[in-house]
Amino acid sequence: MSSTRGIDFWFAVGSTYTYLSVMRLPDIERDSGIAFRWRPFSVRQIMREMDNRHLQGKPKKYAYMWRDIARRAEMYGLTAIVPVPHPLQEFDLANRVAVLRAQEDWCAAYVRATYRRWFVDGQEPGSEPNLSASLREVGQDPARVLPLATGDEIGRLYEEATDEARTLGVFGSPTFAVGQELFWGDDRLEHAVMWHRHGRLDPAASAASKV
Amino acid sequence: MSSTRGIDFWFAVGSTYTYLSVMRLPDIERDSGIAFRWRPFSVRQIMREMDNRHLQGKPKKYAYMWRDIARRAEMYGLTAIVPVPHPLQEFDLANRVAVLRAQEDWCAAYVRATYRRWFVDGQEPGSEPNLSASLREVGQDPARVLPLATGDEIGRLYEEATDEARTLGVFGSPTFAVGQELFWGDDRLEHAVMWHRHGRLDPAASAASKV
Repeated sequence: MSSTRGIDFWFAVGSTYTYLSVMRLPDIERDSGIAFRWRPFSVRQIMREMDNRHLQGKPKKYAYMWRDIARRAEMYGLTAIVPVPHPLQEFDLANRVAVLRAQEDWCAAYVRATYRRWFVDGQEPGSEPNLSASLREVGQDPARVLPLATGDEIGRLYEEATDEARTLGVFGSPTFAVGQELFWGDDRLEHAVMWHRHGRLDPAASAASKV
Repeated sequence: MSSTRGIDFWFAVGSTYTYLSVMRLPDIERDSGIAFRWRPFSVRQIMREMDNRHLQGKPKKYAYMWRDIARRAEMYGLTAIVPVPHPLQEFDLANRVAVLRAQEDWCAAYVRATYRRWFVDGQEPGSEPNLSASLREVGQDPARVLPLATGDEIGRLYEEATDEARTLGVFGSPTFAVGQELFWGDDRLEHAVMWHRHGRLDPAASAASKV
C-alpha cells in the first residue's frame, strides 16, 4: 500500500468492459484523490500468447457480456448502445494512437473520445470516421498524428508497454495495478482503490454495500 | 422483476468462486428477505460443450484467481486457504449428492459443509474424507446416501438440471437467475438482488458504494 504512488491503469482500446472504466475514471479520480496512470498495451498480443479463444465463438457468453455491460452502463449513468462493432479491425492503430498520446500526455481525452464514438455512435476505434474525429476533438491534426502513430518509435513503445504488462502478470483489460497487486476488470476498480488506501479490501466497505 | 418469485442460484460444487457465494448466501437471504433456490448442475458438461479451456493451462490467470478469491474472502470475513486441490477428481459425485439433497431439501447445508472442508481444510469435495464427513455433519448416513447419489434417478435429475441451465443460457457457476435475467459470478450477487427488487441495477446503490 502506498498513498504516494498512484494506480497504473493498464488498458487496451478495443476491450469492451474497458469502456466502463474509461468513463468512470474521472469521477473515481476526483472522489478518491488518487492519480491513475494510463498505460495502453496490446492485450490482444498477450491473449494470443495465452491461446485465449475469441468470445465470439461462445454465443451465450458473448450475449451475456453485452447485457452485463448494458445493465452496468445504465447503473453508472452511461449511454451504451450495444452490441457495438467488435472485435476492432484496426486494434493496433487505435492503441498506437493511445501510446503516442500517452507520450504527449493527452491519452485519457483521446481514449474517452474514441470510446464514446464507439459505444454511443457505433463507430469503431482505429477506423474512420472515429479516428480522425476523435483526434480533432482533442485538438490534434490527424495528418500529423497518424504518421507518428504508425511509425517505428511508437511501435517500439507499444511493444515495451506490452512487455511490461506481461512481466507484471497482466492478462486482460482493464487491469488496475497497485504496485504488484493486480485487479482485473472494471468491477475491481473500487477494490484497487481500497487496496491503495488500506493495503487490503475493506470489510467496512463490503458491509456498507450490503443489500 | 418480481418480489414474489425468488432467485435461482445455479451452481456446481467444484467451481472455486462459488465458495464465496455459498458462504455469503445466508446473510444475503436474511438481509434481503429473498428466497434463493439452490440449483446444482454440471457446469463442467456445459463448459466442455463450449470448448472452454482449463484455467490451469493459463498460469497467470489461474494465479490471479486464487489471489482474487483470497482477497475477497478476507473482505467477507471468510477463511480461504488457497490454492485448494483443483480441479475436483470426483466432480460429478460431489454434485450428484447436491442434486439428491436438493430433492431432499438439505442441499445448502451439505454444500456449505463440503465447501468449508475444501477451502479451510484442503479436502476435495466428492472424495473422502470430505464426502462422508460432510454427509455426517448434516445428519446423513453415507451408506444410505451414496448409492442413491450414484443411481440412475439422481443421474437423470442431474442431467435435467443441466439441460435446464443450458436452455436458460447459463454457462458458468455461480449464476443467479431472476426470471430470464442472468447474473454470472459471485461479484454479481448484489446485482441479482437489485434486479429482483427494482427490475434494474440501482444507480443509488452505485453512488452509495462510491469510493
